[in-house]
Amino acid sequence: MGEHGSGSSGARPDEARRHNRAALLRRLHVDGPCTRAVLAAELGLNRSTIKAVVDGLAESGVVTEAVPARRTGAGRPSLMVLPQPESAVVLAVDVRVEQVAMSMVGLGGQVIGRHSWNLRRSTRTPGEVITHVAESAQLLAEELAVTPSGAGISVPGVVRRDDGWVHEAPNLEWRDIALGARLAAVLRLPVQVANDAEMGALAEHVRGVAREVADLVYISADKGVGGGVISSGRPLRGTRGYVGELGHLVVRPGGRPCYCGSRGCWETEVGEAALCRALGMPEDTPRGVVVAELRSLETAPVPGPLDEFAEWLATGLVTVVNMMAPELVVLGDLFTALPPGVVGHVRTLVHERSLVSRAVGGTRIETSPLGRDAKLVGAAELAFEPVLGAV
Amino acid sequence: MGEHGSGSSGARPDEARRHNRAALLRRLHVDGPCTRAVLAAELGLNRSTIKAVVDGLAESGVVTEAVPARRTGAGRPSLMVLPQPESAVVLAVDVRVEQVAMSMVGLGGQVIGRHSWNLRRSTRTPGEVITHVAESAQLLAEELAVTPSGAGISVPGVVRRDDGWVHEAPNLEWRDIALGARLAAVLRLPVQVANDAEMGALAEHVRGVAREVADLVYISADKGVGGGVISSGRPLRGTRGYVGELGHLVVRPGGRPCYCGSRGCWETEVGEAALCRALGMPEDTPRGVVVAELRSLETAPVPGPLDEFAEWLATGLVTVVNMMAPELVVLGDLFTALPPGVVGHVRTLVHERSLVSRAVGGTRIETSPLGRDAKLVGAAELAFEPVLGAV
Repeated sequence: MGEHGSGSSGARPDEARRHNRAALLRRLHVDGPCTRAVLAAELGLNRSTIKAVVDGLAESGVVTEAVPARRTGAGRPSLMVLPQPESAVVLAVDVRVEQVAMSMVGLGGQVIGRHSWNLRRSTRTPGEVITHVAESAQLLAEELAVTPSGAGISVPGVVRRDDGWVHEAPNLEWRDIALGARLAAVLRLPVQVANDAEMGALAEHVRGVAREVADLVYISADKGVGGGVISSGRPLRGTRGYVGELGHLVVRPGGRPCYCGSRGCWETEVGEAALCRALGMPEDTPRGVVVAELRSLETAPVPGPLDEFAEWLATGLVTVVNMMAPELVVLGDLFTALPPGVVGHVRTLVHERSLVSRAVGGTRIETSPLGRDAKLVGAAELAFEPVLGAV
Repeated sequence: MGEHGSGSSGARPDEARRHNRAALLRRLHVDGPCTRAVLAAELGLNRSTIKAVVDGLAESGVVTEAVPARRTGAGRPSLMVLPQPESAVVLAVDVRVEQVAMSMVGLGGQVIGRHSWNLRRSTRTPGEVITHVAESAQLLAEELAVTPSGAGISVPGVVRRDDGWVHEAPNLEWRDIALGARLAAVLRLPVQVANDAEMGALAEHVRGVAREVADLVYISADKGVGGGVISSGRPLRGTRGYVGELGHLVVRPGGRPCYCGSRGCWETEVGEAALCRALGMPEDTPRGVVVAELRSLETAPVPGPLDEFAEWLATGLVTVVNMMAPELVVLGDLFTALPPGVVGHVRTLVHERSLVSRAVGGTRIETSPLGRDAKLVGAAELAFEPVLGAV
């Protein structure tokens, strides 16, 4: 609590300038180029303030101004303010079970370059992954002639956001890894580490189907099932910076044992292995084959081979919707390959069985337009959060 | 967004004064009497500011100052600042299925007077309850010679917080009732209506076992089962102001049909009726008899008659803990009558089965010290929120 009553009050002018600059950059970064007039209207700032901020940013090369290609209306054309992607670049890394994906992302969200490699059992250790990330990041930065200002890392595990400690990433077989500190040391960058599903939620909120949605849940399946929640516009986080593990809500008491010590977790019933079982395939069928099989079912009728799978997906979703009262649930990653008829069937089941869905006027359930890229996109946005305030 | 960059910046002096007064009152209201020196230290304000605020409040009779009964240390005794309960009074109402409880609560949380009455099928209609609340509130205010400045109402149902609309309160058989507007009209007071479990969480957070706990879940059983969540110190609320309905997470797929359209809801497995079944009693056994039977099992061994009940309670708790990552789960209302051995058994099961509990270093599970009063206490705090800013 500040010293409100003792004379000096309010923000100092340089704080105000920094605040305005960060707000303007965030607007350009998230929503793209626009005119000074639009910036003034949207940010509630007067034209002279906008001019001062834009001039300052133009001088340091963070934005440029240009005549729009297509003029609308008569009169003098309003100059567009364009973010310069190379002026602020971040490194985004999505560590998955079978693969690491990496990208350099510029201001405005443009992917400047990317790189990925597959993981095998021997290359999946924390040490190997950290070394490979550091080497690849350096090569990519040199190749693209960019210097990242920060890094965001998405990990499929139980992560303490405060310091990037990975308590457990079961499908990677990682436990108690100081990933944030170790990567910061080798990358020589500020590093933020987060749970992959939280990154999916952030990506959909900033650049996907959940823009303008304050209450959303993102759920995705890879080897494991995870969920990220944004509630009243803020990421939901529990004690000590841990996010919840939606893949471990219990849908089938007494069901299959899960590595977590429970049985019948949502993950064991709707994760990649469960989908393989539903399709009559071995549990370790390569992802491409699973997706191809799902595509071949595109026009499959309900009832069909995925009925029981849909039932478990719906059961977990009823719990999620009843507990969180979201406006929108986004199904990501492997779930985006589900036949539309199955998704529609799940939508109907949830609405019939969730009193909260009915109360809020029907919770929407959509598949992710970002698909497999969501977590990488989210990791970039995570890295941009401090950068936007510091440019 | 304000006009940060254009010259006038910061809070005006009268805003700062109001802010300081509200902060000081909230401190006294929540934590009780203390000295000016402690107020200055805790609120980060200097002594002259504290003096000005306290003098102003003393002049209008909201606080008094007194020499503490027990002096500590040498030197001139520091005056204690005491909130005056009658200076700001609110009406709290807890509408339950079998009973309405009402209290007048003064600044500092002191219950000045209370009243309650039983509900039967014929007196449980919204119109009857609203009329009875209004008449009783007037009588109670006259009897106590107080004038409430606001009212908080706890209802076991799906409530839209924005305007106190009750979408559905199934165990009361209410649906689509403009409870907030109707009570405000007859009470001629600002009225706030909230879900009862949200009120339980608020009560435990402000005056119960969850003080200083930023991430907590409160779960209670009456006829229904409900849950309230406080996450990062703020109540969790979903779209359009609805809170989640933790009683309707699915614990037993294909289990008993629930009125909500689903099956095997947590409420159908651990609500009052389920507890009666577990005890071998008819489902409509009076509450007092149920509690007496539970008390007689106080030293019952595990395994015992409540084993299956404990299993379902633990199953739901694993889901709640894995989804919300709370530091503390508070079991309220009827759950407070569970034998300690059963609560301990549930605690062990949850810890064994929840990876999130293990990640955060062991989620605590405690019974509510406020017991049956929690929702009434929470309703008073709900009513105080705007009042503290306006005194």
